[in-house]
Amino acid sequence: MSWKAIGIFDSGVGGLTVLKEIIKSLPQEDTLYLGDTARVPYGTKSPETVTRYAMEITTFLVNRDIKLLIAACNTVSAVSLEALKQRFSLPIVGVIEPGARRAASVTKTGKVGVIGTEGTIRSSAYTKAIKRINPEIEVITRACPLFVPLAEEGWIDNDVARLTAEIYLRGLKNDGVDTLVLGCTHYPILRETIATTMGEGVQLVDSAEETARTVAEILRNSCMIRPPAERGNHHYFVTDVPAGFLKVGNRFLGETLHDVHQVVLEKEGCVAQ
Amino acid sequence: MSWKAIGIFDSGVGGLTVLKEIIKSLPQEDTLYLGDTARVPYGTKSPETVTRYAMEITTFLVNRDIKLLIAACNTVSAVSLEALKQRFSLPIVGVIEPGARRAASVTKTGKVGVIGTEGTIRSSAYTKAIKRINPEIEVITRACPLFVPLAEEGWIDNDVARLTAEIYLRGLKNDGVDTLVLGCTHYPILRETIATTMGEGVQLVDSAEETARTVAEILRNSCMIRPPAERGNHHYFVTDVPAGFLKVGNRFLGETLHDVHQVVLEKEGCVAQ
Repeated sequence: MSWKAIGIFDSGVGGLTVLKEIIKSLPQEDTLYLGDTARVPYGTKSPETVTRYAMEITTFLVNRDIKLLIAACNTVSAVSLEALKQRFSLPIVGVIEPGARRAASVTKTGKVGVIGTEGTIRSSAYTKAIKRINPEIEVITRACPLFVPLAEEGWIDNDVARLTAEIYLRGLKNDGVDTLVLGCTHYPILRETIATTMGEGVQLVDSAEETARTVAEILRNSCMIRPPAERGNHHYFVTDVPAGFLKVGNRFLGETLHDVHQVVLEKEGCVAQ
Repeated sequence: MSWKAIGIFDSGVGGLTVLKEIIKSLPQEDTLYLGDTARVPYGTKSPETVTRYAMEITTFLVNRDIKLLIAACNTVSAVSLEALKQRFSLPIVGVIEPGARRAASVTKTGKVGVIGTEGTIRSSAYTKAIKRINPEIEVITRACPLFVPLAEEGWIDNDVARLTAEIYLRGLKNDGVDTLVLGCTHYPILRETIATTMGEGVQLVDSAEETARTVAEILRNSCMIRPPAERGNHHYFVTDVPAGFLKVGNRFLGETLHDVHQVVLEKEGCVAQ
């Protein structure tokens, strides 16, 4: 058993949807969440820059003695996960593999759609992960860069949101996918509009639940899980001032956030391994 | 006379619209441009974080021996200009004052609209600057967070752009402004759609030309201007890989960009003053 916390990070608030599932399935665990709100978004930036940021954040969390790390950001999971695993020796879980596994098990027609940021889609990480599970599945992808700013503006079901979804999803719909992976932690906020646009018979998959299941399995198998009677504490770090994170975060997490601290990652120095 | 270059910076590519005017009116001057593409956008971030970034960039450019600095980013000009002026001893020009001056001289009805990022609008910098020139002018402001991602997605005159403009600008139109300040360097890209939405009789003001005029005046008055027969060189620095900057930058500058280098600001250290 390990009393250490689970570390979890994202470019901003989106990863709180993953944290929410972690807290639901592992309420006994402590968690440390870091949102890189001073440099958000990652989805439009290069793999090199995203990996540099992910390294800094992981160094920060590892220095605070975590037992497992979740990259709750799809872009990081898509472009930086291997680099993180090579550099750090703790278990590291991304959101792509769990999402791919779920999509592969859900599809009946063998046609899966994936939407995400430019960085995630350009990496082909979902396509590769799904095809590793079942090479017969056809994967059709589409970057939807405006979904993140729409979710942050709170325009989740007005005419602009609907029209944007119509333009982005038209091709996927015409291609007849029966499963659509929401490959960005912001997209569940637009779930209703995306579901309506895709129409009945298309199942939406988000990675949060499946990621939580994967984490529980790893902790159990490696005997690092805490006794179920415990109740974990949750701490939050952000790189910009906490105000904006608190405002949007409560909506994402579904409960009130406490204990949010601002940190400067660049001052963190080297990892103590 | 000073042979030193003019430094100019922005959160990303938007400031190239200002650089374009500088090159047009002062073709004899060397310029150093820095786009903080690894941390863009600034408009959604806190004044503290934006000021920290602006300090790092100014340190970088001052270390490369510039004679004058242009903060070509409206958000920086709105929230960080005083802090920069207090810390650094060279002439520093923002884009708010020139834009405000132009708006105040153009309006006939005395009703001026200002659109910009959340950071710029929240600061009330344009309102204060316009009222300093003429306290009688009524200034009506509106943050338009989706205009930047729309411009970057290249959706500048489709239905989504028009509908978004309609929602953001409805209030300003109903209030009867006769002048609208495009208070973000990205917005000139959406000029047509904004103009059509506002209708005839509303004059759009962007700060680029007026900023170039201010810079020429300062260089002339302080005897730092180069002989007009010279032809300047232009160097570019970015914080993310150059590819994305080159792609969008050519459109913003209106000519092909050369000599773009990636730099890491955090490694820059202290300013040599």
